[in-house]
Amino acid sequence: MVSATTIKEFESVWPRIVGDLEAHCKHYKLPKQSLDWFVQSLNYNTVGGKCNRGMSVIDTSSILLDKTLSPTSEEYFQAALLGWLVELLQAFFLVSDDIMDASKTRRGQPCWYLAPKVGMIAINDAFLLEGAIYVLLKKHFRPHASYIDMVELFHETSFQTELGQCCDLLTAPEDEVDLNNFSLDKFSFIVIFKTAYYSFYLPVALALLYIGAATPKNLQTSLDILIPMGEYFQAQDDYLDAFADPETLGKIGTDIQDNKCSWLINQALKKVTPEQRKLLEENYGQKDAAKEAKVKALYHELKLKEFYEQWEEERVTDLKTKIDKVDESEGLKKTVFEAFLKKIYKRSK
Amino acid sequence: MVSATTIKEFESVWPRIVGDLEAHCKHYKLPKQSLDWFVQSLNYNTVGGKCNRGMSVIDTSSILLDKTLSPTSEEYFQAALLGWLVELLQAFFLVSDDIMDASKTRRGQPCWYLAPKVGMIAINDAFLLEGAIYVLLKKHFRPHASYIDMVELFHETSFQTELGQCCDLLTAPEDEVDLNNFSLDKFSFIVIFKTAYYSFYLPVALALLYIGAATPKNLQTSLDILIPMGEYFQAQDDYLDAFADPETLGKIGTDIQDNKCSWLINQALKKVTPEQRKLLEENYGQKDAAKEAKVKALYHELKLKEFYEQWEEERVTDLKTKIDKVDESEGLKKTVFEAFLKKIYKRSK
Repeated sequence: MVSATTIKEFESVWPRIVGDLEAHCKHYKLPKQSLDWFVQSLNYNTVGGKCNRGMSVIDTSSILLDKTLSPTSEEYFQAALLGWLVELLQAFFLVSDDIMDASKTRRGQPCWYLAPKVGMIAINDAFLLEGAIYVLLKKHFRPHASYIDMVELFHETSFQTELGQCCDLLTAPEDEVDLNNFSLDKFSFIVIFKTAYYSFYLPVALALLYIGAATPKNLQTSLDILIPMGEYFQAQDDYLDAFADPETLGKIGTDIQDNKCSWLINQALKKVTPEQRKLLEENYGQKDAAKEAKVKALYHELKLKEFYEQWEEERVTDLKTKIDKVDESEGLKKTVFEAFLKKIYKRSK
Repeated sequence: MVSATTIKEFESVWPRIVGDLEAHCKHYKLPKQSLDWFVQSLNYNTVGGKCNRGMSVIDTSSILLDKTLSPTSEEYFQAALLGWLVELLQAFFLVSDDIMDASKTRRGQPCWYLAPKVGMIAINDAFLLEGAIYVLLKKHFRPHASYIDMVELFHETSFQTELGQCCDLLTAPEDEVDLNNFSLDKFSFIVIFKTAYYSFYLPVALALLYIGAATPKNLQTSLDILIPMGEYFQAQDDYLDAFADPETLGKIGTDIQDNKCSWLINQALKKVTPEQRKLLEENYGQKDAAKEAKVKALYHELKLKEFYEQWEEERVTDLKTKIDKVDESEGLKKTVFEAFLKKIYKRSK
């Protein structure tokens, strides 16, 4: 049994990555003011999250190689670097999503675009976070047999996430509530494209490419398990937003007021009578606590909590069946997916 | 003698490119509303400019192959596709630059982010324009011997341009005039990184990769000529902004009011007496026509027009000397650079 890496070990690698990027910029003779700015943006936007996505590249690699990678080894560094690339991709998305959503805080501090003197420069900073991925990939993986596949994987995942974001922004604009826009199909598209590919599939696909086990079959198997797992994860996230204790969750859910195309509203729309639909139309997606409470009351009336709990059991059973059938002959391991599922199932935050 | 392509021929290829991207998105089952949006953004933001950068990929390829490519041939399509990728890269930058600069119009119509219902969604649309580059490159050039070099060239050029934009935004913020921030070194960095790499070097490097003549020597020679040419081009642009007849130029120069780190202000700062510097500090970078007129009067007093004209002759002589020394033994041709220079020298708009 291999043991999982810790956030402390993962973060210990970060300074070397920043150093690589600094060296790259100094080679270009980037003026100091700009270099300091870029380094500040890198630290502010990439570090400080839970790093689940990044660390899962290391954990998946350890499981596939069947050994715990020593945090001081070059093997650990390389897997961790790939993990940080996933975190950089996420940083690129979060910096820009926060502008698009007019968010105020992120990870307990002001969003980067709201930090002193930043403003819309944050857009270019987001580009540089994305650009850093390819600088680092070239520096550390140019001779790797799967280099071009890694590059293409980042391209495809980025494009998929951007299509998901496009659909999300058009389906649920904050200022124009139209429940006719919603559907479970759109919910699925948004979740799969905006979240599942980069959060679930990308880390495992990178680990498979890294250790040289990215056969078409192993990639397809990973996709077939991790995309539904990502859908389940987001449905759970939406469920927690409305039904979890805010104290435990660590935040107060805002999906109803924010007009989100969430799993709950889409399930509700399938169950409502015409009168109940009218109630949703009059109360969903507005910055008004009383209206939000009416929507929540209807969720309870429709027994969405119980429905979710049953649905979750079915999804988890399905996933376990799929995991059980994983063909390990080409180097993939069931444990990879079990480790993911264990982190998600019955989580309360 | 090969003949140059026309904008009509170049644009005739565009619908096929949009078709490729539509097919790619349909394969992902992107909901119709999002697909229509993406296509609208592609057309609005990529088409309608002069397309000098894109067309120069075709013209350079024609010169290098020593034959005029027939607009209906697959060879023309492939060169034109690479040209459109340069235009997509530019579209990605322009859409986001316009937000960062709070610009109002672009190519005679409202900037994309100011178009109805767009707003900050434009940020994600910019990402998709960039992402389209790699979708198309993979579709059409995956089997090409220089595929990975093309991908890396786009990565590096994008990163360089973003570093140039970072430096520009930090050096010349619109709301905080500080001439101590300016220097000819910073001017050069900004021009080379923000403009020269993607506008001058990228099209030629792509043509060299496309026809299989991208030897290290040919790439280095191209860089050594095209980067100084890009610097000259931008200095000329800055000169025209202040000294050209707005009627001929087609726009009214705003560099002085916009606090731009232009060639002229940097040359002026090298020539001023302490009193004249005080005048610049009191009048540069403010939205005030009377103050702008004072700066312009000082430019005349410092004889910057005459200085530029002499400087231009020296730069052009230098460039011609370099072009004359081009070693054509590995497939590069002097004519490539002569064609570029001819389009720039003594232009009035």
